[in-house]
Amino acid sequence: MSKVNIKPLADRVLIEPMAAETKTASGIYIPETAKEKPQQGKVVAVGPGTKDDKITVKVGDTVLYGKYTGTELKLEGKDYLIMRESDIFAII
Amino acid sequence: MSKVNIKPLADRVLIEPMAAETKTASGIYIPETAKEKPQQGKVVAVGPGTKDDKITVKVGDTVLYGKYTGTELKLEGKDYLIMRESDIFAII
Amino acid sequence: MSKVNIKPLADRVLIEPMAAETKTASGIYIPETAKEKPQQGKVVAVGPGTKDDKITVKVGDTVLYGKYTGTELKLEGKDYLIMRESDIFAII
Amino acid sequence: MSKVNIKPLADRVLIEPMAAETKTASGIYIPETAKEKPQQGKVVAVGPGTKDDKITVKVGDTVLYGKYTGTELKLEGKDYLIMRESDIFAII
Amino acid sequence: MSKVNIKPLADRVLIEPMAAETKTASGIYIPETAKEKPQQGKVVAVGPGTKDDKITVKVGDTVLYGKYTGTELKLEGKDYLIMRESDIFAII
Amino acid sequence: MSKVNIKPLADRVLIEPMAAETKTASGIYIPETAKEKPQQGKVVAVGPGTKDDKITVKVGDTVLYGKYTGTELKLEGKDYLIMRESDIFAII
Amino acid sequence: MSKVNIKPLADRVLIEPMAAETKTASGIYIPETAKEKPQQGKVVAVGPGTKDDKITVKVGDTVLYGKYTGTELKLEGKDYLIMRESDIFAII
Repeated sequence: MSKVNIKPLADRVLIEPMAAETKTASGIYIPETAKEKPQQGKVVAVGPGTKDDKITVKVGDTVLYGKYTGTELKLEGKDYLIMRESDIFAII
Repeated sequence: MSKVNIKPLADRVLIEPMAAETKTASGIYIPETAKEKPQQGKVVAVGPGTKDDKITVKVGDTVLYGKYTGTELKLEGKDYLIMRESDIFAII
Repeated sequence: MSKVNIKPLADRVLIEPMAAETKTASGIYIPETAKEKPQQGKVVAVGPGTKDDKITVKVGDTVLYGKYTGTELKLEGKDYLIMRESDIFAII
Repeated sequence: MSKVNIKPLADRVLIEPMAAETKTASGIYIPETAKEKPQQGKVVAVGPGTKDDKITVKVGDTVLYGKYTGTELKLEGKDYLIMRESDIFAII
Repeated sequence: MSKVNIKPLADRVLIEPMAAETKTASGIYIPETAKEKPQQGKVVAVGPGTKDDKITVKVGDTVLYGKYTGTELKLEGKDYLIMRESDIFAII
Repeated sequence: MSKVNIKPLADRVLIEPMAAETKTASGIYIPETAKEKPQQGKVVAVGPGTKDDKITVKVGDTVLYGKYTGTELKLEGKDYLIMRESDIFAII
Repeated sequence: MSKVNIKPLADRVLIEPMAAETKTASGIYIPETAKEKPQQGKVVAVGPGTKDDKITVKVGDTVLYGKYTGTELKLEGKDYLIMRESDIFAII
């Protein structure tokens, strides 16, 4: 997992997407079609949360999230996604 | 019912859909047309709930949910749906 | 009225629709056109309600509800509708 | 005014529409075009209200309401409208 | 200003629109195009307000309001508008 | 700055727009294209505010606001805009 | 970073956008296509916040924000963006 120097605001989470063919220890993988983006990634930075939205995920967690979720960033040549924690479905 | 290593966030529930022709002990089954997806499944994992949304369903419950509800995942070759508990209509 | 083995969640109500030509003791019936579904039915199961939405209708009540409201289910050969109580207009 | 055996739920009101050419004691009448439905009627039943929506109108009040408001019902051969009190503009 | 026998509900206000060419004592008038309705009128009746919406305007006030705002009524041959007070911009 | 005899309601503010080529003491000016309206003006009247929306701007402030914001009025031959304070971006 | 004489209202933040090819000390840069605007900038002024939205960013912070976010202003020949803090993703 990468180290990045970024502080997400509020309930936002920075995620390093995993390639669609990646398979976790528990064997979960995501259906892939030519049209779908990967939906699985590693958490690399989390915001402080808000009064209403406490942050549950931790740096290092592997998470599942919806297609077309979040905004793409590039950092030192790698692609990241930044999204609200409420866009994350589950920790695997 | 399958065991899966996944922790849904917040008020999300992981469901293993049952084939549309499946019939429960109480005899409930779902109308099926060529165009409709199955609407019945087994709960295989539940999130911790939120302050406003306590989780009512339990792992093992058979539930009814709306067509086109939730996001499809694949785990060790099986298809699952992840959705918010508020998308579930009833326990049967 | 049928007995069914189903527990609606939250503020949902299971209704057995009555045929459009059905006439209640008080003589209420619903205008019918070729395009309209019946809007009258018997309550066969109610959810526990929520903190914000207490349930008013009881099993056995005859209720009026909007066209196109709710989701259709089939149970032991009969058709039902499941809907939120807020979609029910009145008890007759 | 008719008597009807119906209990509106929550903040709903049952109204017997008056013909568009009806004129009240105070002389109010509603502009009529070929395309517009009547907007004036008698209250024949009111719901208990809700925590947030107390009911102001009483059975017997003549009220004004918006075009295309409410849902049509038929009772013993007469047409009624059921709507939320917030859809009623004024008592005349 | 007309007297009318009408009790607006909640935060509604009954307004007698002034012709677009009307000019107040302070000289305010509203831009007029062939397509625009008048936006200035006299308050002729006000509702009791609600818990969240206290009524500020008084009968007799001349007010400015948005084009296409409110619902048209006719009373003893005159046209009126009924609208929520929040649709009124200012007292002039 | 003009004096006008008008009392905005609630959280509304009356603004005298400045020509797009106007330049403030601090040198701020607004990009102008043939299609854009001026976005800078003088506050000439403010409403009393609401429980949730206290008014921050004062009569005499020069403010920036979004294009297409507010409703146009004409007073003694001058054009004004009336808008909610939340449509104002900044005081300059 | 520029000094500007402007007081954003409420939870608004004034940002001096950085050219898309700019690279921060931590090496973050934003993917650029012919169609995308820069998404990185320096905070030059912040509003006082609101009861519900405390301001987290400080003047001088480098921030990431969504494409097409905010309103463009021009000040002494430089372009700025004014946006709500909730439109800012992260501090880098």
